[in-house]
Amino acid sequence: MGALYNLMAGQSLERLAALSDGVFAIAMTLLVLDLRLPETGKIHSEHDLWRALVLLGPRFIAYLMSFLTLGIFWVGQQTQLNRFARADRNLAWLHIAFLLFVSIMPFSTALLAGFITYRIALLTYWLNILILGVMLFVGWRYARRAELTKPDTTEQISAAIERRIVRAQALYAFGALLCVFSTYWSIALIVVIQLNYAIAPRIRPLYRL
Amino acid sequence: MGALYNLMAGQSLERLAALSDGVFAIAMTLLVLDLRLPETGKIHSEHDLWRALVLLGPRFIAYLMSFLTLGIFWVGQQTQLNRFARADRNLAWLHIAFLLFVSIMPFSTALLAGFITYRIALLTYWLNILILGVMLFVGWRYARRAELTKPDTTEQISAAIERRIVRAQALYAFGALLCVFSTYWSIALIVVIQLNYAIAPRIRPLYRL
Amino acid sequence: MGALYNLMAGQSLERLAALSDGVFAIAMTLLVLDLRLPETGKIHSEHDLWRALVLLGPRFIAYLMSFLTLGIFWVGQQTQLNRFARADRNLAWLHIAFLLFVSIMPFSTALLAGFITYRIALLTYWLNILILGVMLFVGWRYARRAELTKPDTTEQISAAIERRIVRAQALYAFGALLCVFSTYWSIALIVVIQLNYAIAPRIRPLYRL
Amino acid sequence: MGALYNLMAGQSLERLAALSDGVFAIAMTLLVLDLRLPETGKIHSEHDLWRALVLLGPRFIAYLMSFLTLGIFWVGQQTQLNRFARADRNLAWLHIAFLLFVSIMPFSTALLAGFITYRIALLTYWLNILILGVMLFVGWRYARRAELTKPDTTEQISAAIERRIVRAQALYAFGALLCVFSTYWSIALIVVIQLNYAIAPRIRPLYRL
Repeated sequence: MGALYNLMAGQSLERLAALSDGVFAIAMTLLVLDLRLPETGKIHSEHDLWRALVLLGPRFIAYLMSFLTLGIFWVGQQTQLNRFARADRNLAWLHIAFLLFVSIMPFSTALLAGFITYRIALLTYWLNILILGVMLFVGWRYARRAELTKPDTTEQISAAIERRIVRAQALYAFGALLCVFSTYWSIALIVVIQLNYAIAPRIRPLYRL
Repeated sequence: MGALYNLMAGQSLERLAALSDGVFAIAMTLLVLDLRLPETGKIHSEHDLWRALVLLGPRFIAYLMSFLTLGIFWVGQQTQLNRFARADRNLAWLHIAFLLFVSIMPFSTALLAGFITYRIALLTYWLNILILGVMLFVGWRYARRAELTKPDTTEQISAAIERRIVRAQALYAFGALLCVFSTYWSIALIVVIQLNYAIAPRIRPLYRL
Repeated sequence: MGALYNLMAGQSLERLAALSDGVFAIAMTLLVLDLRLPETGKIHSEHDLWRALVLLGPRFIAYLMSFLTLGIFWVGQQTQLNRFARADRNLAWLHIAFLLFVSIMPFSTALLAGFITYRIALLTYWLNILILGVMLFVGWRYARRAELTKPDTTEQISAAIERRIVRAQALYAFGALLCVFSTYWSIALIVVIQLNYAIAPRIRPLYRL
Repeated sequence: MGALYNLMAGQSLERLAALSDGVFAIAMTLLVLDLRLPETGKIHSEHDLWRALVLLGPRFIAYLMSFLTLGIFWVGQQTQLNRFARADRNLAWLHIAFLLFVSIMPFSTALLAGFITYRIALLTYWLNILILGVMLFVGWRYARRAELTKPDTTEQISAAIERRIVRAQALYAFGALLCVFSTYWSIALIVVIQLNYAIAPRIRPLYRL
């Protein structure tokens, strides 16, 4: 009975992971549809084409940002999924809700790129990041309470995972606050935070566990 | 021979699950393309942008509804797939037909959101949900008759799975019927039913088996 | 060494299957984007909406046909993949070429649905089906010659798989030929053949092996 | 502890592979959306439809090229992933960056197909291929230094993998250089190189290892 149970739970986790990978892959790729080719009729020289490509710059940056953000949350969700021994219905729904906001990320990012000086665009973008963080945090707390994590997941590891989310969200919130002065300050800080999470190897030991 | 057989059957189930996860992931994400950015030329102040975002409200709600509905049926299908010991060609086709109506769900939902006071829109949406339920029910019945379910799937479990589908569909049908009075009543009831299935933990023991 | 080898080969097959499932899932879902909502401004009554939905009929049928065709080839490819013990580079490329024509299927089907009385549309559609069949046939032959199939894949099984492809393609070719008289005859026969392959349980024993 | 560690690492690799397969599948399929159906109103005879299809030729070739290029890099990435014993955060990020440029490939290819006589279009396309090659090379070097590859990955195998990337990129760079004379020369050479990598069985023994 125990073995069978584990097998079923394992399959559920596998399918949750597969659904997540699918949603992430699509959300990551979707913004490329916004990189529209320049119209043939308007291009008469290399210089025209070059200018047309330069005009695509902001959309390309939006694409990069979206990819970066989604990459960060994909790594974050994956770390959690790897720590689960099994899933239950509630955990599945918490992650489906998480995926909802994953799939909206391209919209939020494009909104920010299109209206870069507008606070509402910035706050929408930040709200999206905030909700993603909250879902991951709540999902983890629930998994701990319902004892769905692997037996070797010590309090220390759990605290590290939670601390990481809280710290990142505190930084994002501070970045968003800077929009009182200028949205550019906010964006600059948020991008720095994101690059830091993508590149910085500080917490790698956690992944090594 | 037996081991090999199991391996092959297992792979088939795995691929059916992978195809399903792919179709669900795409169907869930597709409606985000309907969340079009406001046109830059029309936005001159924070207030304009705020109003433009508010106007996107109905599409966003359609997105939420679609995600919710697809989440419910993803969980439902997954529960069945986890109970199968192997697949055969007929079962594969029943699930491919199921996926057909999964992938049409974004259309039905957008139709309802766009024509919220029209009975035909509501009945189309309900028909889609009904067919999804029927496919899952027929698929399960077939799997039982063809003895494709795992040996520990007792009559009790099987009855619970069928009862769950029938009960949900009865509620949906009642909700759809309310459109005789007003489509708003129908929608309100359907959303309540859906939220109930997504959130309510009543039948969790079934998933625990 | 042997065990490691098998593991690696297995992973390759797994990834080929995953890529295939992804391409199939997207190709199957893509045509739903052609089911455009009626414009709100033109709909003033239930009757208007009903007529608008009826006008979507042909696109919906194209969607059904595309799903059916892709379902058939998905089952066909899966049967082969399940019979492979390992993959090599050539087999991978044969299947990548197969996937190319899988992903073009929605275009061919929409072309046929949009220009149902045109022989060129019908022949394009048939050509797509033909190439899919040829790729599967060549892929299987290659796998046999390069000894990539599982050791228990007898000559009998192999012949059955090849015969199935040849027979289906002969029927499709005959159907396409009927366009000399009328494209409607062709389409009717092709749909009958497809439904037969989707529903008919004649060769199920093969899948049971 | 060791066993658990391997399990976790394995799951990470699996999810990285799943995300990659998803992104590749979408990128490969996305260009089909550019194959727009001819407008019904403009087609009055078989001849009109034939001409409309011929006009789609360049887009179809772009589709083929994109599929071919992505197929090559999919096989390349898969070979590496199969050689990894485990993943870490840095490796994951190197591959996420790789996927970013995978998902941009449809844009680069469409740009080239649309502006086939423009050097900037050709150089953009080449730049995309170059970055994909660089990411794979850097990813492999990192995996070797961080000892993430399987223990039986000899220096010889590693050198062969690196040599393959460098040689291909040298050829691509030479092809791109030819645009000094004519972009057609460049494209012809690049397509020949690509077909060679897709079809030529020279280095198959490596995949056999």
